[in-house]
Amino acid sequence: MPGNSFGQSFRFTTWGESHGSAIGCVIDGVPPRIPLSEADIQPYLDRRRPGQSRYTTQRQESDTVRLLSGVFEGETTGTPIALHIENQDQRSKDYGDIKDKFRPGHADYTYWQKYGIRDYRGGGRSSARETAMRVAAGAVARRVIAHLLGSEQVAIRGALVQMGTDSVDRLRWDWAEVDRNAFFGPDAAMAEVWAARLDEARKNGSSLGAVVEVVAQGLPAGLGEPVYDKLDADLAKAMMSINAVKGVEIGEGFAAAALSGEENADEMRMEGDEVTFLSNRAGGVLGGLSTGQDLVVRFAVKPTSSILSPRRTVDRFGQETEIVTKGRHDPCVGIRAVPVGEAMMALVLADHLLRHRGQVG
Amino acid sequence: MPGNSFGQSFRFTTWGESHGSAIGCVIDGVPPRIPLSEADIQPYLDRRRPGQSRYTTQRQESDTVRLLSGVFEGETTGTPIALHIENQDQRSKDYGDIKDKFRPGHADYTYWQKYGIRDYRGGGRSSARETAMRVAAGAVARRVIAHLLGSEQVAIRGALVQMGTDSVDRLRWDWAEVDRNAFFGPDAAMAEVWAARLDEARKNGSSLGAVVEVVAQGLPAGLGEPVYDKLDADLAKAMMSINAVKGVEIGEGFAAAALSGEENADEMRMEGDEVTFLSNRAGGVLGGLSTGQDLVVRFAVKPTSSILSPRRTVDRFGQETEIVTKGRHDPCVGIRAVPVGEAMMALVLADHLLRHRGQVG
Amino acid sequence: MPGNSFGQSFRFTTWGESHGSAIGCVIDGVPPRIPLSEADIQPYLDRRRPGQSRYTTQRQESDTVRLLSGVFEGETTGTPIALHIENQDQRSKDYGDIKDKFRPGHADYTYWQKYGIRDYRGGGRSSARETAMRVAAGAVARRVIAHLLGSEQVAIRGALVQMGTDSVDRLRWDWAEVDRNAFFGPDAAMAEVWAARLDEARKNGSSLGAVVEVVAQGLPAGLGEPVYDKLDADLAKAMMSINAVKGVEIGEGFAAAALSGEENADEMRMEGDEVTFLSNRAGGVLGGLSTGQDLVVRFAVKPTSSILSPRRTVDRFGQETEIVTKGRHDPCVGIRAVPVGEAMMALVLADHLLRHRGQVG
Amino acid sequence: MPGNSFGQSFRFTTWGESHGSAIGCVIDGVPPRIPLSEADIQPYLDRRRPGQSRYTTQRQESDTVRLLSGVFEGETTGTPIALHIENQDQRSKDYGDIKDKFRPGHADYTYWQKYGIRDYRGGGRSSARETAMRVAAGAVARRVIAHLLGSEQVAIRGALVQMGTDSVDRLRWDWAEVDRNAFFGPDAAMAEVWAARLDEARKNGSSLGAVVEVVAQGLPAGLGEPVYDKLDADLAKAMMSINAVKGVEIGEGFAAAALSGEENADEMRMEGDEVTFLSNRAGGVLGGLSTGQDLVVRFAVKPTSSILSPRRTVDRFGQETEIVTKGRHDPCVGIRAVPVGEAMMALVLADHLLRHRGQVG
Repeated sequence: MPGNSFGQSFRFTTWGESHGSAIGCVIDGVPPRIPLSEADIQPYLDRRRPGQSRYTTQRQESDTVRLLSGVFEGETTGTPIALHIENQDQRSKDYGDIKDKFRPGHADYTYWQKYGIRDYRGGGRSSARETAMRVAAGAVARRVIAHLLGSEQVAIRGALVQMGTDSVDRLRWDWAEVDRNAFFGPDAAMAEVWAARLDEARKNGSSLGAVVEVVAQGLPAGLGEPVYDKLDADLAKAMMSINAVKGVEIGEGFAAAALSGEENADEMRMEGDEVTFLSNRAGGVLGGLSTGQDLVVRFAVKPTSSILSPRRTVDRFGQETEIVTKGRHDPCVGIRAVPVGEAMMALVLADHLLRHRGQVG
Repeated sequence: MPGNSFGQSFRFTTWGESHGSAIGCVIDGVPPRIPLSEADIQPYLDRRRPGQSRYTTQRQESDTVRLLSGVFEGETTGTPIALHIENQDQRSKDYGDIKDKFRPGHADYTYWQKYGIRDYRGGGRSSARETAMRVAAGAVARRVIAHLLGSEQVAIRGALVQMGTDSVDRLRWDWAEVDRNAFFGPDAAMAEVWAARLDEARKNGSSLGAVVEVVAQGLPAGLGEPVYDKLDADLAKAMMSINAVKGVEIGEGFAAAALSGEENADEMRMEGDEVTFLSNRAGGVLGGLSTGQDLVVRFAVKPTSSILSPRRTVDRFGQETEIVTKGRHDPCVGIRAVPVGEAMMALVLADHLLRHRGQVG
Repeated sequence: MPGNSFGQSFRFTTWGESHGSAIGCVIDGVPPRIPLSEADIQPYLDRRRPGQSRYTTQRQESDTVRLLSGVFEGETTGTPIALHIENQDQRSKDYGDIKDKFRPGHADYTYWQKYGIRDYRGGGRSSARETAMRVAAGAVARRVIAHLLGSEQVAIRGALVQMGTDSVDRLRWDWAEVDRNAFFGPDAAMAEVWAARLDEARKNGSSLGAVVEVVAQGLPAGLGEPVYDKLDADLAKAMMSINAVKGVEIGEGFAAAALSGEENADEMRMEGDEVTFLSNRAGGVLGGLSTGQDLVVRFAVKPTSSILSPRRTVDRFGQETEIVTKGRHDPCVGIRAVPVGEAMMALVLADHLLRHRGQVG
Repeated sequence: MPGNSFGQSFRFTTWGESHGSAIGCVIDGVPPRIPLSEADIQPYLDRRRPGQSRYTTQRQESDTVRLLSGVFEGETTGTPIALHIENQDQRSKDYGDIKDKFRPGHADYTYWQKYGIRDYRGGGRSSARETAMRVAAGAVARRVIAHLLGSEQVAIRGALVQMGTDSVDRLRWDWAEVDRNAFFGPDAAMAEVWAARLDEARKNGSSLGAVVEVVAQGLPAGLGEPVYDKLDADLAKAMMSINAVKGVEIGEGFAAAALSGEENADEMRMEGDEVTFLSNRAGGVLGGLSTGQDLVVRFAVKPTSSILSPRRTVDRFGQETEIVTKGRHDPCVGIRAVPVGEAMMALVLADHLLRHRGQVG
């Protein structure tokens, strides 16, 4: 099957290019009789929206979502939900230089190699603009999860935990802080450090990488489909499919390689009638199935490839050249990846909740 | 769809439990007229086979593969290929203690929570024994890749790059060394260090984690299916689905978060008529499509959860208890994950080669 | 997976309700560099459009298609193609009576039973309005087929072969006639008979059933994917999924049951270097694969369920009642099923051409 | 995806050739904790088994099924179920003549055209032998249906309703009679007619076609997934995928084309608290969803293509020739299609029950 769909039971398909007239998605498999309106979706888009601080691209998009089908009198009907966002700020003139030159670190060269044709306006389909529809679909997924598990049960939250070489201090972690700074950072002190670092990078026309952590709390145990659609396998795919992501880990992740078996084991006790774990090295997944603990995923985002220093490259006629990527760009795309990561988490969970119910009841 | 299949165009489905009578797989979508016999598959199984050194489980399995369909007079016919391995050493008595107790770090608890029933003999379906069929299917995938790209074109090789806290020195990297030591290590000096460390862990009944690197050389540019079945997204899923894997990264991976945009850009030049890159921070993937450079994937394997130190746990009747996991286990499961990682790489590539050909020709 | 998508390699997903603001579809998997514009699609929609004669519903829809993505500078880019049609004539007041009553022969009762909620405006998702998007997607499929096989190579044509109890005389079959009468009938004399019969039915507030035949000429041999996605199996599904269809047959179809093995065998001879068949009882499919002969499919369409005679029914409160279905309806939905059947044929063929190329080259 | 799998949530994949060492299947998605053993499957295979009367092929196969995975201590575990049947009577010498010649009406020519290679022993993969695994998987599907709906709730039964030109008298229909004659005929008097006709055909080396009807009773309303995976669409595909089937219809089927809207409407009344229908022209499906009435499907089976009269054909070297198909064949393959049709019905229903539960609960 072609690659623009995600999920098995809760399945969405996105379409649209960075500088086309619109972008959209279709979500199929949503259970019926769930209250849903545009107002449930828009706040998540607003959170991801560009142009909200000097640290994100200055492209101006209201990202106003329209819900075109699948809802009747305020409730889902079980039929496909189409979502639609008009593109407003399509200043393609900024992109003239990339018509023929391949920007290093971008998908220009590989799309050209694959398809032999490329919508070069702003990256076309490979643009991070596509992630707006992930966020929109993710908002619908959140409604499905709330419907299935109870509206107060599950919290899905993301935060920036590293920018460049600077990581948050977990002792200062405060979820409330995440919405107070421009970085979705949970550590107020670190947010100030990042502000300074990113201002500097921005002035230099440079860019910084980042690490994002997404946590889901309140899940039941047993979600995931062995042995290939394990919960962690699907999360790895979901996060790695986000633009600029180069690594994904669960729980201790790469650090687990340096632990002994004794250190890594999450021991179990009873707390009344409930099983409880004494630690969560596993990040909430064992054998590809959720344990019921916090589900903890981190992913690494490379520094934005659009920078102002000239880079050596070639063009599609096989000529060597240089390029400077002007235009409007995020100096750290990792920031806006936070709501996207949350959305992908929600989308994976909604899918696995429905898959689990199908087989196990 | 249920979770025991992988791939879209080259699609395989595995079945079987650790201590059932047999394990097997069905591969569908293999192109016709490719020479194939059991002799093309067995060497890869031999490489993964347990009991070959004191560093892997002492379970004795010849892992002799039988090819039951889809091949006629030495060539594939385009119909499904069924592979079959009898289980020989099914000493279930070793596993009596885990009938009721949940082993920390294992899938016992989560399978029980999901299905309400569990084949407790040696982990049942969640056992790493399942990975034998991945290796078998991977051998078929290698034949498909050779058929499509030319038999000498693509090399898919894996190596252990870290055990516990000890990493290889990349200046001493020697692919030939990988087959000379018991660890699939590319650095002979480090292999000696690992031997000492693992002997110690083994004697203490402990275990070590590891990091595996898999590299594919000789690929064309343009493989991958945006925007959800990107090549790196599918690789992330493939590797994360391997037992005990907790993290996956491509190219610079998590280290990319600490680089500047300038450092991270892989500049391009012409070398005669060919585009060449001056570096490979990207690990051979841009925008989810192969660049034609080396495709570099790493994954982290947690330390074996089966250890001899007693761990606190609970049983399925809700009673608190302790457990010591006797039986035959790999003190570092990361070692045998090397051929499994290679197989998953081959399986992803065969699938994407066929998918690409379907759409683009 | 949910049910609003069709096809594996050429995959489309439709959305939208009869009286929502719009309907649309997303097509994924289209090969790149195929010339495509709205002008390639609109003529097929015009052919299906309601209100063109007194024999079809008087609903007024221009059915103007907009192509929103996946095409750049007049050529497909290999990314998803979104198509969009605004609904114009949404006179929902006509449908007030069906809010609570279940119309016999319609999907009212079953949607209510399945989902517990129903968009009752004009049938909502179950309306034949959805078939407009099949026709639009089918037009894209035709372009793909032309691209793969040569633009003059394949002809996909449909015709009405029976209305009520009156069937065409095959000796008078004239493809050119199909576009001359209001019924897509290939037999001019029969078209006059039908006109009289349907006028009568229309005046009585009654309706008639029909049989449609769709033929694809110029196909290569070998299309189809044994043993479950055989070409005829996928065609059967495609046609049966059209609203009001109750039967599908290939070649001789049900009549084959009454033939002897000798009569039914399509003997083969050589014509120069080409294999030729002396008959086509099989309808162009053997063993689920195309033979290269004409591919011949017929399907039966039941009489429109919306009639003016009162019928006994119940409402959603469990009360017995009667219903008369006013509103604007086709007295013979089989007529407009002709372009829809052609579209489904094109969609199946485009999909199988790409699937075949993926595996076999 | 390749074509040897069927179903979405209850998904099975078959493998194996007519004259290979074995045939088998893997079923994925079966709910856990359903009692299941080989004894639940074998009776259905026995019913389909060849060589039980002079009216079916004399090939001797015990068709003894082995259950290799997915069941522990007598209950399903939710993991894949592998089924396996050894081929015993592989007299390939009978098939020497078809090595190079294409048998009219068989898949010889089309497989050759598709794959460029063919396992010519007894039809290889295109042989009706593959249907044994459909029957085995269908037996598992029946257990799933019984588990989900209650073991006495649903009856899935098939019968031969026409052989050659002779149809049963529905007034004499007796389900108990189906197991008393060699034809699965529900009309004892007609069974005698068929016996005479088929003896004659057999003596002449000829063959007869047939029509099979399969009925499922006791279903809930609302099964099916609009708008492409409608229940009737999936049934059409399922039945058309059976070897030699050329037509499928639901309820009135093709006869519906000749009815008026008034005649075709199934009116509704209340019977206590239950909705009841006054007729079942629809065959238990409206809008692609089950109505709760009897689900009635019929399919036409062409006469066996293996006949003793010489037929003109060509060989794979492009030479004209003649062929007489010796060997062991069913003079009317429609007979043994009855248990296969029942199995396909069960497989579609199990799949749709799980799909429905996933989305709607």
